[in-house]
Amino acid sequence: MRGLIMDVPLLISSLIEHAARNHGDTEIVSRTVEGPIHRYTYTDAHRRVKQLANALTALGVKSGDRVGTLAWNTYRHYEIYFAVPGMGAVCHTINPRLFPDQLEYIVNHASDRFLFVDLNLLPIAEKFAPAAPKLEGVVVMTDRAHMPKSDVIGNLICYEDLIDGHSDIYEWPVFDEHNASSLCYTSGTTGNPKGVLFSHRANVIHSFAASMPDAMNISARDVVMPIVPMFHVNAWGIPYVTTMTGAKQVLPGPKMDGASIHELLEGEGVTFTAAVPTIWLLLLAFMREQKKGLSTLKSVIIGGSACPRSMMEAFGEEYGATVRHAWGMTEMSPLGTINTPLGKHAGLSKKEMYDLAEGQGRPLYGVEMKIVDDAGKELPRDGKAFGELLVRGPWVSSAYFEVDHSPAHEREPGWFATGDVCTLDQNGFMRITDRSKDVIKSGGEWISSIDLENIAVGHPEVAEAAVIGVHHPKWDERPLLLIVRRPGSSLRKDEMLRFYDGKIASWWLPDDVVFVDELPHTATGKLLKTKLRDDFHDYVLPTAG
Amino acid sequence: MRGLIMDVPLLISSLIEHAARNHGDTEIVSRTVEGPIHRYTYTDAHRRVKQLANALTALGVKSGDRVGTLAWNTYRHYEIYFAVPGMGAVCHTINPRLFPDQLEYIVNHASDRFLFVDLNLLPIAEKFAPAAPKLEGVVVMTDRAHMPKSDVIGNLICYEDLIDGHSDIYEWPVFDEHNASSLCYTSGTTGNPKGVLFSHRANVIHSFAASMPDAMNISARDVVMPIVPMFHVNAWGIPYVTTMTGAKQVLPGPKMDGASIHELLEGEGVTFTAAVPTIWLLLLAFMREQKKGLSTLKSVIIGGSACPRSMMEAFGEEYGATVRHAWGMTEMSPLGTINTPLGKHAGLSKKEMYDLAEGQGRPLYGVEMKIVDDAGKELPRDGKAFGELLVRGPWVSSAYFEVDHSPAHEREPGWFATGDVCTLDQNGFMRITDRSKDVIKSGGEWISSIDLENIAVGHPEVAEAAVIGVHHPKWDERPLLLIVRRPGSSLRKDEMLRFYDGKIASWWLPDDVVFVDELPHTATGKLLKTKLRDDFHDYVLPTAG
Repeated sequence: MRGLIMDVPLLISSLIEHAARNHGDTEIVSRTVEGPIHRYTYTDAHRRVKQLANALTALGVKSGDRVGTLAWNTYRHYEIYFAVPGMGAVCHTINPRLFPDQLEYIVNHASDRFLFVDLNLLPIAEKFAPAAPKLEGVVVMTDRAHMPKSDVIGNLICYEDLIDGHSDIYEWPVFDEHNASSLCYTSGTTGNPKGVLFSHRANVIHSFAASMPDAMNISARDVVMPIVPMFHVNAWGIPYVTTMTGAKQVLPGPKMDGASIHELLEGEGVTFTAAVPTIWLLLLAFMREQKKGLSTLKSVIIGGSACPRSMMEAFGEEYGATVRHAWGMTEMSPLGTINTPLGKHAGLSKKEMYDLAEGQGRPLYGVEMKIVDDAGKELPRDGKAFGELLVRGPWVSSAYFEVDHSPAHEREPGWFATGDVCTLDQNGFMRITDRSKDVIKSGGEWISSIDLENIAVGHPEVAEAAVIGVHHPKWDERPLLLIVRRPGSSLRKDEMLRFYDGKIASWWLPDDVVFVDELPHTATGKLLKTKLRDDFHDYVLPTAG
Repeated sequence: MRGLIMDVPLLISSLIEHAARNHGDTEIVSRTVEGPIHRYTYTDAHRRVKQLANALTALGVKSGDRVGTLAWNTYRHYEIYFAVPGMGAVCHTINPRLFPDQLEYIVNHASDRFLFVDLNLLPIAEKFAPAAPKLEGVVVMTDRAHMPKSDVIGNLICYEDLIDGHSDIYEWPVFDEHNASSLCYTSGTTGNPKGVLFSHRANVIHSFAASMPDAMNISARDVVMPIVPMFHVNAWGIPYVTTMTGAKQVLPGPKMDGASIHELLEGEGVTFTAAVPTIWLLLLAFMREQKKGLSTLKSVIIGGSACPRSMMEAFGEEYGATVRHAWGMTEMSPLGTINTPLGKHAGLSKKEMYDLAEGQGRPLYGVEMKIVDDAGKELPRDGKAFGELLVRGPWVSSAYFEVDHSPAHEREPGWFATGDVCTLDQNGFMRITDRSKDVIKSGGEWISSIDLENIAVGHPEVAEAAVIGVHHPKWDERPLLLIVRRPGSSLRKDEMLRFYDGKIASWWLPDDVVFVDELPHTATGKLLKTKLRDDFHDYVLPTAG
């Protein structure tokens, strides 16, 4: 029997309709690519969003068509975030930091019909646009006075010209909330980037969950600055969450240096912000050097990679802002967990609170998590057992866009295999211990490569360490420890292995140690274990005989 | 094009699954009907909920079947709240304060197959159960030691016996989130009570919206006590909101006196509670008499009727707890608005903040509101124009259960006409000025009966006042003022009317004044205007000639 409740779909257009109707005088402040600070209100934004929807309609953009963006966090990008999905098309945010061949692959794979590009990112677009035959037009997100010329792309369209003259009267279409709203590609270490195709429903439900007091905790009295780029999973959903709540928004544009970020934090009274740790290091360095403080910031969400404890302590103790870890993935819209304490943690000491804060946190309602072993058997939630994390929920990816087979989606029907290896405790608090590709599978049991590395770098003569699994005839895989010694050190294998005494179970002990001059890294400084596994693919362990 | 996101339905069972999995050690504390305080955890509750689901399955309860409850806020009622919808049946909460003939009508109209009843409400069930031929069994919510006997109802079932021996292993079925979950009848002043049939989707989305920082603002660190009864629109959704967030719950059972409520507030560390004003008056009186304070309570939501300003000030200034008005209806699951300030209100004086707090507040995201005139034309959001409030959203009723025609649902397609007359300002802040049945429709324009009454009672010789519209040959309706004078007063009509000088537009002035000895009231003390309109149906105004 069906309930007798109105069938009102959860659409992205309803977010800005709500904000314009009830928070029409609240500001959206934006540092522009052109330079100056731009400020207007939700009412102004909604008018221009509707002009843009009319302009896109006039260009022939139809329901389901993909419209790309290559842009920073500005008010024009914000307008595209609502106009494109609002009219039923798909907003495809593209990460300008990818390699040119990846960008070319993505734009063609997505069949983007139009591309919106920021002034200073046009040179990037010029590298791939000529190789994208389905691309009908490139819109530069600026006004006529700043319009560049391009020798490569013919007939650049000026954003302000595009919307100028179009009516700000537009009735948002009503359609199935399961329809696609947005597309974001994620690039792994191998293979082509893969597209996650979000739905209106996923974005709206994710916004509800993200706004809750135990998640981002955003109210209409907050001033929210997403530093995380709008080309990274919808800036973690923050523009949608903030619009849902009617909070003031501050969009930092392209300038990510400490001085520029600090200027906006203090000048606009920002209370909530979110970014990756690198940005916070820049900000901390700036504030310490310039002896500046933070007078309004209350809450900082950090994701992407783990936040050093010293940074959490600096923000908490010196600047009065609480730093919380969040964990998620493009495939999760992106929020999975956030590290917010429970009632029973009220009595913890400061040290214990920071210990707790180092983990990835507990799941939002809507996200189901479990850890499994190689055979798919669920492992206990005891904070000790670790296994691969599987997730499901109404904002979790069910397949990649136009990809036939996906091991992550096929590992267990109805679940998504995250590739992270972690522990869960009885309250769902999650701690990542490894990536599933890096964990060493020895005789059906798992050994954490990260744990072994962390112990090794604790040795005074070790500069850097990596642990990989290499083939073993009996145990399938066994750990091999690779060490970069500190200058002048003549550390020996037996001395190194003895350093593990009492720190690990004896069967975790690496089967061999190789001293190397350097270890390979990715562009962002992470260990490139795929290369190490290739290099040591045929390595014969001394125990293999 | 459909998004590629998992199709995970929003089901009530997922709320308690989430709480048991991640907040399993958090308490649910309950004052029982038998007397003692009962305490257990979400883990314990979930086990018993699953036992109950198995027991109901064994009784033959099937998807869509209605199961009635006549019960206070206790842990057993909480279990029914999850077991019945969780298994796909419909939890029909019945208000024991209705008249026996209404109860009989409701139970038969709903075709309840089973009825769960609290010990001290059995005498009420005995009055209507024999006249409910479809009722197959009555379950008394107690253990064997407390089981009563009934001369009227044969084969009473004992709750604890019912679930005892059933397994606590039960796989929650997965079905369409639009399926009915709960049924609650609303009784107007005329006609039979009408049933609102909620869906799983409506309850879960409502819980998201209600938990947000600008609404109830409930986190896992809160201790939540719904004093509003679980037979009033699911206790305003609070048991579901609280379970979603994993907060500790305190269920006050049948005892509503100041001492009992205060004991739980202080003894359990309650931080959030919600009730109608009557309960707070009892609590305030108790605290003043006993010189007691409140050490943990932060937030109080008041709904049902307006909270006197003096009470808001007492809680805020004397006891440190913020009182917020909420407005809603059974037809809205029930939340429509909540009175939470905006960022721009930060500079208001204390007096201005309390002025603001007297209104009904602003809409939650998800609720669309507009005010219209008699012809359905939308009126401006200027805080002055008043019209009938229409609402729509994903938790708003689309029709009454098994009722063919509903004027409230048919007034404008896709909207629900609330029957409230109000103003809206540019931020959506709503103030109720009248009920649509009471507003006086004079020559196509509306006159607020409540405004005229409020001015009249400001006259020192007026004890009570009522204003109704009576027939007028030219203007359709004109206001008639009914006055109960204070003892000893000989206030005259012309003196009374002169009192309105400068306070209203001249065309609002009542056409006549009738002095009466008393005015009729409802059981809850509200003016019974239907009776007044009947009594004065044929009244001839002096202006009608």
